[in-house]
Amino acid sequence: MSKDKVYIFDTTLRDGEQVPGCKLDTEQKLVIAERLDTLGVDVIEAGFPISSPGDFNSVNEIAKIVKNATVCGLTRSVKKDIEVAAEALKYARKPRIHTGIGTSDSHIKYKFNSTREKILERAVDAVRYAKTFVEDVEFYAEDAGRTDNEYLAKVCEEVIKAGATVLNIPDTTGYCLPEEYGAKMKYLRENVSGIDKAILSCHCHNDLGLATANSISGVINGARQIECTINGIGERAGNTSLEEVVMILRQHPYLKLDTGINSKLLYDTSLMVSEKMGMPVQPNKAIVGSNAFAHSSGIHQDGVIKKRETYEIIDPREVGVDHSSIVLTARSGRAALAYRAKNIGYELTKVQLDVIYEHFLRFADRKKEIVDEDIHQIIENANINIESIA
Amino acid sequence: MSKDKVYIFDTTLRDGEQVPGCKLDTEQKLVIAERLDTLGVDVIEAGFPISSPGDFNSVNEIAKIVKNATVCGLTRSVKKDIEVAAEALKYARKPRIHTGIGTSDSHIKYKFNSTREKILERAVDAVRYAKTFVEDVEFYAEDAGRTDNEYLAKVCEEVIKAGATVLNIPDTTGYCLPEEYGAKMKYLRENVSGIDKAILSCHCHNDLGLATANSISGVINGARQIECTINGIGERAGNTSLEEVVMILRQHPYLKLDTGINSKLLYDTSLMVSEKMGMPVQPNKAIVGSNAFAHSSGIHQDGVIKKRETYEIIDPREVGVDHSSIVLTARSGRAALAYRAKNIGYELTKVQLDVIYEHFLRFADRKKEIVDEDIHQIIENANINIESIA
Repeated sequence: MSKDKVYIFDTTLRDGEQVPGCKLDTEQKLVIAERLDTLGVDVIEAGFPISSPGDFNSVNEIAKIVKNATVCGLTRSVKKDIEVAAEALKYARKPRIHTGIGTSDSHIKYKFNSTREKILERAVDAVRYAKTFVEDVEFYAEDAGRTDNEYLAKVCEEVIKAGATVLNIPDTTGYCLPEEYGAKMKYLRENVSGIDKAILSCHCHNDLGLATANSISGVINGARQIECTINGIGERAGNTSLEEVVMILRQHPYLKLDTGINSKLLYDTSLMVSEKMGMPVQPNKAIVGSNAFAHSSGIHQDGVIKKRETYEIIDPREVGVDHSSIVLTARSGRAALAYRAKNIGYELTKVQLDVIYEHFLRFADRKKEIVDEDIHQIIENANINIESIA
Repeated sequence: MSKDKVYIFDTTLRDGEQVPGCKLDTEQKLVIAERLDTLGVDVIEAGFPISSPGDFNSVNEIAKIVKNATVCGLTRSVKKDIEVAAEALKYARKPRIHTGIGTSDSHIKYKFNSTREKILERAVDAVRYAKTFVEDVEFYAEDAGRTDNEYLAKVCEEVIKAGATVLNIPDTTGYCLPEEYGAKMKYLRENVSGIDKAILSCHCHNDLGLATANSISGVINGARQIECTINGIGERAGNTSLEEVVMILRQHPYLKLDTGINSKLLYDTSLMVSEKMGMPVQPNKAIVGSNAFAHSSGIHQDGVIKKRETYEIIDPREVGVDHSSIVLTARSGRAALAYRAKNIGYELTKVQLDVIYEHFLRFADRKKEIVDEDIHQIIENANINIESIA
């Protein structure tokens, strides 16, 4: 079955780094960029070159070392921004300039104190100017989520004519519902003349917890690039989580969409970014949280021990986690206790298990998590004759 | 405009507590239950009474103190479970027994080694038996996400006849896409005879990061209860986040759906649960993360300072956060620096700001976050004559 490719545009080092307290130095960024390249992302947005001398330098150095991915720099629709970005990217094997402007009425009025016509003109000028430096120019229509569809289509049409290769449709405030965001992509696919010359891109924010669902709805409706970050980091509630969209597409083959990501590197990459940025990942984070594959309730543990697919859809090894953990707590059942006891050398008969389980429950009601040493102690205290099989 | 009520079924103390290392004692559970009652949840699932003596006791004590919400206890489709739950709930003003069984072929075969016919019989028997103790009986069709729709509709029909008041349709493995989960609800609304006598309930897991989107898709398609937890805690990648679904419905009034939650208590409740469970909330968690309302990039800060709605859709005060923070980093622009400088007493002219901003950028490239003291120092070092207005 042939699948359409969805390009992964990683913005961990640009939108992701826009996090209070998470500034990285150039050396740290180079290590992450190298890892992203190995992970198989298609585009690395390396920074916003005009924003500071440090950022310029990082983009410049990243452009030199990345082997496979396109390296991208952000700009506003401002000549100086574009010149500086082009300079920063000059050593990239595959450079991309990402320029754009706010297109919602709210942005046009309150941010630019301008009009739709003037904004359209600036957009086209910016793309045309960027095109004098590089072949690959992505245009962002900031706050596209709240932009009138008809005007948005007009903007898309004109920037394609000016040479844009990718159209980024950001839900800047994270307000859209999945149906709505998907409908916007569908509208653009159907109403922008020349749309086949460009790739539509999803750029979603997670203010309402919907960034992942919106991006998936976007590609189902015709977009072919997702802008995302490792661990979903980013300003406010962050961006779309790279690991989530990658695994959703892989787990739903009937969508006939896939990415080029080597998923076995996801877990390690998550740890690396979390550590370098000092941004903790909550235990219940999908795919990469420390509990993502941990079962503690009796009913679930019993099911997983009988057949992994009963409660797990992803084989943890597919994302680079060694095995799903059977964690013992007061909610655990006999099967989990027997499983863990066996792992440390006790083969319990049914009768023995019944006795030990009673002891275990009383013990577990007083303790959050039962470790191997506790199991030894419980069995010893139960004072029944159990042969260690170790 | 009249809105349909979506009932909030909080399972922080049951499914949420099924987290390795997060066991709560009865006293902690009572404090949280009291807070959930004040927050305005409609149902508090207090525990799984037969699972351990501690859990029985917690459900029993919670039943005594909750004033407004329904108090619910979980059971399997097992007589003894139901009797113990009824006993634990006997002091509740509004008791509910939550019973059920796995209905997917995978669960029927690998977990129960049974047949569809026998499982249906056990489901009906369980509901009928629970009904001899309480009026309000919720039935869960475990792994409904992977259950054949036709068989699922048959099960729903029969348990409604047996007296079920609520039908819980769990996506136990967190596998469904929003469209698919919504379509399942729609199918049940249209194909279960007697469906008007019961409420359809969404119970979603976050293994692929879609729990919130799936729940919203569920209520758009006819469900009227969402099962969720504070901070989205729960086994593996957790459950649907209460705070996210509540704010999505509030932010999209055209859906004509709302909950009875007092959103101003969301942030405090999140902190309380995180602290008592020892489960950290990542900074980029939607609605309740410490960065959820923090802006650090220059473009965004400028927009927020001009008009909050440019980048923020939720007024932070609506969820109990005092103000959105303007955090200074190397990505910040002049407007943010001027704003923060003014907050600590410096009214900068445009020319002064230009000079100070250059100093600020060099400083910020070396430091992750700029605090007030740094601003004082930068201005002092710049050695230009600025009147403090403090």
